[in-house]
Amino acid sequence: EIIIPEPFYTNYNGYAEMANLRVVPVRTRAEDGFHLPADEALDAAVSRRTRAILVCSPNNPTGTVLAWEELERLAAFVKRHDLFLIADEVYKEFTYDGRRHRSVLELPEIRERAIVVDSISKRFSACGARVGAVISRNPEVMSSVLKFGQARLCPPTLEQLGAIAAYRLGESYFEAVRAEYQRRRDVMYEALTADPGIVLKRPRGAFYMIVKMAGVEDSDDFARWLLEDFSLAGDTVMVAPAGGFYATPGAGRDEVRMAYVLEVSKLERAMEVFLTGLERYRAARPAVAQAG
Amino acid sequence: EIIIPEPFYTNYNGYAEMANLRVVPVRTRAEDGFHLPADEALDAAVSRRTRAILVCSPNNPTGTVLAWEELERLAAFVKRHDLFLIADEVYKEFTYDGRRHRSVLELPEIRERAIVVDSISKRFSACGARVGAVISRNPEVMSSVLKFGQARLCPPTLEQLGAIAAYRLGESYFEAVRAEYQRRRDVMYEALTADPGIVLKRPRGAFYMIVKMAGVEDSDDFARWLLEDFSLAGDTVMVAPAGGFYATPGAGRDEVRMAYVLEVSKLERAMEVFLTGLERYRAARPAVAQAG
Repeated sequence: EIIIPEPFYTNYNGYAEMANLRVVPVRTRAEDGFHLPADEALDAAVSRRTRAILVCSPNNPTGTVLAWEELERLAAFVKRHDLFLIADEVYKEFTYDGRRHRSVLELPEIRERAIVVDSISKRFSACGARVGAVISRNPEVMSSVLKFGQARLCPPTLEQLGAIAAYRLGESYFEAVRAEYQRRRDVMYEALTADPGIVLKRPRGAFYMIVKMAGVEDSDDFARWLLEDFSLAGDTVMVAPAGGFYATPGAGRDEVRMAYVLEVSKLERAMEVFLTGLERYRAARPAVAQAG
Repeated sequence: EIIIPEPFYTNYNGYAEMANLRVVPVRTRAEDGFHLPADEALDAAVSRRTRAILVCSPNNPTGTVLAWEELERLAAFVKRHDLFLIADEVYKEFTYDGRRHRSVLELPEIRERAIVVDSISKRFSACGARVGAVISRNPEVMSSVLKFGQARLCPPTLEQLGAIAAYRLGESYFEAVRAEYQRRRDVMYEALTADPGIVLKRPRGAFYMIVKMAGVEDSDDFARWLLEDFSLAGDTVMVAPAGGFYATPGAGRDEVRMAYVLEVSKLERAMEVFLTGLERYRAARPAVAQAG
């Protein structure tokens, strides 16, 4: 068993399935900015079969950046229950408002328990690059990882060469990227929070946010309706229903995930289309519900 | 459980481990050119847990190309026991002496049971390309494969672009490659079979051969000795001890795998070095054994 705060990146399910692992979710909430719940909730998720907790910070899908105090709580938690702390830190360059990413590898108390999963694909906007890394100070963990790595022989050659070039870009590359994403986040955050029926704490990292909406009870239906039945002067907007990011059945049905990977002018227009659509949907739904 | 004729490509072990599968070997022998054993031996390997048999043709590490009659026997075998026939056909362009590769997908009786594993890396000498395929007419199999594929998102982008270019090379590319490898195989085969203590049937495909040697009882030791304690005018030769290609403990200890991936002139010299070394090793070993 592996504990994962939900909502979480959907593909963890696929990998857990392949590794014959059961995912045990721990709920985080829009109202708390999707920060970690109290220790009691974490402790309650542990069973005799638990081996690790996996966190992703900066987070996909929530954009939440865990505070140093949360990392320290996680360190105490994994020591208390003899677990590994696995951190997906692939978005570590994407932090805003002057916040700096802190790695679980910085936690002095759990040098042998901390395992970081990294990748070049977010860092350098190279989605299909398939070059990543597992980083740990635990020699047994690394020796096991190496066996699986050897079975796969190597990461792809051309992408390795591309990665070498990308790593020579230097810090100025990231400063420009960070500034641009922060602008995009601001555009979306300001537009969305103008709607009093939306619950959204300002996300501090990555390039996603989970948007909780009053008046939406089935975000699968809402997302489909937005694409198929609604447009504003010919423009449509696509959002990801959040249900797929939860392991708990029925959770996230009043939420969608948005990604801010488009330029600012397109995001501004997307927010107009989205908020107009949301208003229209809320107004139409009661009638549709009666008709059904 | 999955049945695999041994010797087999070592990495199958790693993947079986990941998939929580037990590999059940079926022995093939140098004296038979590593062709399939009789039906009785195949049948004896089946248990209630058997789900598939995996064959590799042209074969790594033996170079053996299965005859059409053998494929038909395999088709009858998997029908008889309700199994899948998985064929690793990544060396299919590498067949010699006018022999043509036949795929398990050509077997009319087992359209739903045949699964082919393919890759571009051998075909185009692109070892690190990491672009492959699973091919089957069974919709349930393909739907399961797709789920795992989706969890991995995509094969590497740059290698996909490289593959598109490579597939435009046309048949003349393979004719030249085949002719070159056949020359190399002939150089090695003729040199090795001049030694009456070597058992080697002319391999018909891929670019490997398993060489069985009288006078060698521990090919790990022999391979290490060849590299560390022997040289001919400064030249050394490296071979792969065959034990790693067997699942049966102790099997293959009088065998090594050789790959003919060097140009002819280097292979000629390598055979001189190897055969001189083998002779020297045979002469020295009895004395060493007594000394021990």
